Amino acid sequence: MHQEQRQRTHELLKSRAVERALFASPYSIKWLTGFAAPVQLGVNHPFIGGPPLVWYEAGHFTLFVSDAYAAETAVFDQQPDGTVVTYQSYTIEQPLAGAGHLATALRQHGAQARPRSGRIGLEQRDVMSHVEAALRETTSPEVEFVFIDGWLEPLRMVKTTEELAKLRANFALTDVGHATARRAVAAGQREIDIWTAVHSAIQQAAGQRVPLGNDCVVGYRQANIGGWPLAHALKPSDSIIIDLSTLLHGYWSDSCATYVAGEPTAQQQAIHQTVTEALEFAASLLRPGAVAKEIDRQVRQFIAAAGYPVYPHHTGHGVGVSGHEAPRIVPYNDEVLQEGMVIMLEPATYLPGETGVRLEDAFLITSAGAEVLTHHDKRL
Amino acid sequence: MHQEQRQRTHELLKSRAVERALFASPYSIKWLTGFAAPVQLGVNHPFIGGPPLVWYEAGHFTLFVSDAYAAETAVFDQQPDGTVVTYQSYTIEQPLAGAGHLATALRQHGAQARPRSGRIGLEQRDVMSHVEAALRETTSPEVEFVFIDGWLEPLRMVKTTEELAKLRANFALTDVGHATARRAVAAGQREIDIWTAVHSAIQQAAGQRVPLGNDCVVGYRQANIGGWPLAHALKPSDSIIIDLSTLLHGYWSDSCATYVAGEPTAQQQAIHQTVTEALEFAASLLRPGAVAKEIDRQVRQFIAAAGYPVYPHHTGHGVGVSGHEAPRIVPYNDEVLQEGMVIMLEPATYLPGETGVRLEDAFLITSAGAEVLTHHDKRL
Repeated sequence: MHQEQRQRTHELLKSRAVERALFASPYSIKWLTGFAAPVQLGVNHPFIGGPPLVWYEAGHFTLFVSDAYAAETAVFDQQPDGTVVTYQSYTIEQPLAGAGHLATALRQHGAQARPRSGRIGLEQRDVMSHVEAALRETTSPEVEFVFIDGWLEPLRMVKTTEELAKLRANFALTDVGHATARRAVAAGQREIDIWTAVHSAIQQAAGQRVPLGNDCVVGYRQANIGGWPLAHALKPSDSIIIDLSTLLHGYWSDSCATYVAGEPTAQQQAIHQTVTEALEFAASLLRPGAVAKEIDRQVRQFIAAAGYPVYPHHTGHGVGVSGHEAPRIVPYNDEVLQEGMVIMLEPATYLPGETGVRLEDAFLITSAGAEVLTHHDKRL
Repeated sequence: MHQEQRQRTHELLKSRAVERALFASPYSIKWLTGFAAPVQLGVNHPFIGGPPLVWYEAGHFTLFVSDAYAAETAVFDQQPDGTVVTYQSYTIEQPLAGAGHLATALRQHGAQARPRSGRIGLEQRDVMSHVEAALRETTSPEVEFVFIDGWLEPLRMVKTTEELAKLRANFALTDVGHATARRAVAAGQREIDIWTAVHSAIQQAAGQRVPLGNDCVVGYRQANIGGWPLAHALKPSDSIIIDLSTLLHGYWSDSCATYVAGEPTAQQQAIHQTVTEALEFAASLLRPGAVAKEIDRQVRQFIAAAGYPVYPHHTGHGVGVSGHEAPRIVPYNDEVLQEGMVIMLEPATYLPGETGVRLEDAFLITSAGAEVLTHHDKRL
């Protein structure tokens, strides 16, 4: 499970002379271990005491988690290069002190092999201050700390076979969501009514809870690019942008379509046609070697040439343990597409307070170009 | 908005000679400001850059948030003792660097009035290491840092009028959820089917997304105390524990009932009767001056005296910005109930792999005893 990810990490750290490292970013933890702590009620519940951590040393990865996650992490404990250390969190015998127990577990682990030299990597932007303090307590002053925030992000761009399976399972769920949305959109329905129908269908298909992003907004909202569903009701010929991201097995999908309640207007049909063609054009640019910012420039140019306002957001992005990751398809980005990347493309145009269209598909970059991973109907 | 909370905090910090403080616990932030960042997709999205922070100085509270939350926090900026500082997070013009911008905003704010003496409070268990580093950069070495983790928890126990209104809105939603659950429970339905019906009804009633905890488990699961809904289907006479917590306006509700698909067995009726009486007995013990551990002891004794296994969890707990907070009704707790606390009580008994019953209500402690805040039907 996720051994290839750990191998890539080991090689990177070795090449940069980092002998030990503490990973704290939730994205790093999921990517290194395959374990995804549930997020939908907030990650730092009083019963948990803190987000998971991974300690790297000599090619081995130790996952520190609340004992509430003992069952879910057992598979990682069986990996040849993985160990799980659990700490007590929920108890009725004493005050809840999971954070303290986590720090103690880390301190005890560090004390066993107190580093006296070398470099320790630290994801400083995600690690809690008291956790870093516990780590430093068991570290000689001669040890150098190196901040490794963002180091794994480039390694995450090309997906493994295991990751592609998880991503495909998620894209199957967004397909279910859009099929439901298409049936649910009707005059009289509110954004929240459509959203709950979509979310229910996705969770029933998965047979479990599945967090759901991103947008469900009627065209007549002034800020009609994105936003959460509210009580705005659809009137005949109102458009609605429905952008769906699911989170199953720790991986995100993404997808967007735009629907109209009843009969679309001539204007809606025209901009929908333009955005449909923009998405086809964007997809045609995908291949190994293509430069992110060049795709971005050409797709914006396509919308502008059609005479519509150019979307103010990204043209696309990578997707994986994070819903928006490298390579970003944006104006500044020199990154080059590689086989095995999974890329979202989402051209759009918006007329604030009136209507708007965004269409989004996912693509696996292949030697031949790209394979589409989303299969939802995007017709008006 | 939440001015009384800030006044209590100001008085506490003053009494302990803490002139400045950085709050980082999500519970502290919500309680101090009334602003609740959305949690359901994970709190540290790449577009955000980090959880909100509050800086306290001279009776004034400054909230640091991503510019994505500018609209939602505008009301706090209008408070006489509140200011909002936003930092850039999402952009297509450069790499996402919200965490760095947050630290810069904090550094600039600190540099304006660089403390040269006195004590700075810090919620060290929730603050990111790089944020603490930024704070220390603008602080003279003579300044003493004091860890204030948990200091606000006792202040949070007695609810304000404003908080009671938010809690009541949440309990109204759990009432909706249970009414839906009662209709949805039937042989052939799976846990996830019942859960999605309940969650949809709650969100449609609220007209917005509402995170939902806690449990939806059939009695024949081996671990039938709690857990998330899965694809386990109900057969005739199967019991199901449905424990619902909503999160609206940053406040949690809680509630539990146990349902049976079709006809309950004689055993289910008997234990349901016992747990019903245990909850009534527990409620009768609520009054200002009652000691938490004494309530716990007596309710456990009640279940044991009826000849059933005593539940292994807490008897109850406070509820507010956190779903489980002081005063905990558990064996070690000497805390004394006070007027204005909101207390959950949830006696239960479980026969692993067979069936189980848990019933839970919420109570506002009043001078006369207690007022029940949950109004769901808990009959079998």
